[in-house]
Amino acid sequence: MRQDERVSATRASLLGAAERLFAERGVYAVANRQISEAAGQGNNAAVNYHFGTKADLVRAIVRRHSEQIELIRARLVAGVVDADDLREWVACAVVPTTGHLADLGHPSWYARFIAQVTADPALYAITKEEAAATAPSMRALKEGLNRCLPDLDAGVYEERSAMTRHLITQMSVERERALAQGGPTLQSSWEDLATGLTDAITGLWTAPHTPRP
Amino acid sequence: MRQDERVSATRASLLGAAERLFAERGVYAVANRQISEAAGQGNNAAVNYHFGTKADLVRAIVRRHSEQIELIRARLVAGVVDADDLREWVACAVVPTTGHLADLGHPSWYARFIAQVTADPALYAITKEEAAATAPSMRALKEGLNRCLPDLDAGVYEERSAMTRHLITQMSVERERALAQGGPTLQSSWEDLATGLTDAITGLWTAPHTPRP
Repeated sequence: MRQDERVSATRASLLGAAERLFAERGVYAVANRQISEAAGQGNNAAVNYHFGTKADLVRAIVRRHSEQIELIRARLVAGVVDADDLREWVACAVVPTTGHLADLGHPSWYARFIAQVTADPALYAITKEEAAATAPSMRALKEGLNRCLPDLDAGVYEERSAMTRHLITQMSVERERALAQGGPTLQSSWEDLATGLTDAITGLWTAPHTPRP
Repeated sequence: MRQDERVSATRASLLGAAERLFAERGVYAVANRQISEAAGQGNNAAVNYHFGTKADLVRAIVRRHSEQIELIRARLVAGVVDADDLREWVACAVVPTTGHLADLGHPSWYARFIAQVTADPALYAITKEEAAATAPSMRALKEGLNRCLPDLDAGVYEERSAMTRHLITQMSVERERALAQGGPTLQSSWEDLATGLTDAITGLWTAPHTPRP
């Protein structure tokens, strides 16, 4: 193996170990040393050497996925048939995640990793930066959604955006965890979860909203 | 202080410390010894002595809250004005949590504690057992909801129940964490969060559902 291939293999193995440990235990519960050990690296400083800080490591893991996710999203956004149909745009927000999880196969840790990362405000900011950098289709998706949404106060819009994010993440976590533990799953496939989420999130966005003081 | 008062104060202090540590770090990341220390107990075996296993400790924390939550839920269910109005029943599902969090004041850890506990299938089963044991109003709430819900496949019903649970938990976690960190919050009060959740969850339940293969 050439030197650059060896470096690349080491980095991939560290990223994989970090993703799994972060997903299972939480980002701050895991020391860089444990990641190096789980990746079979004799050198305990391997994470620092290859990635720098923990935030840089999280960024590298997010990037690896967001490139794949962007491919799915770009294809979906380009394939929208009726640009005035809210449900089609909601599907463009849901399927990049569920489709990516289906592509990852079994076992995956991505859903649980993202749930841990987005629960931390500083790390969540990193994932948003990465998404902005690597997801040119996100802008078209937002425009499409906004075109179909009812007129909402800014506060309600922010709130329902957060709800959408939590639903996609937590329902994916629930399915990924059930698959990992060999337990029963609520849906027979990731496609079925996407259908259920798309229906429900469309209902959530079109629900009447009560004025607040 | 009498002996039984001392025992009672020790138990309360251990429960408070355990709830905070579980909320911040996750149930399995925290050792009983750390809880004893955080509660200012010289005896490292205090948790084992007073509560037994970690599952017993989680059950005791859940019970302390579920008694308060039941009082709110029972009052709301008894006060339903139009039993055919889905939104009223959804409010009976949302407000016991948000109202309890408002009652706890600042700082609270309950939302983050519940998120950690319900993410673990074994611990989640404990909270459901506790809820069944301490929440007689839950049955009336379920009957009220079922009375108003559209006809749904069992799978869709289960799925939307899970979504409802995740929305209430995660939106409460987001607000509780923002308050704890002194950051901006999406809503100006727990009451506003309850209104937003009730609107959205009503929309989620009444959304048309696409048949699945």
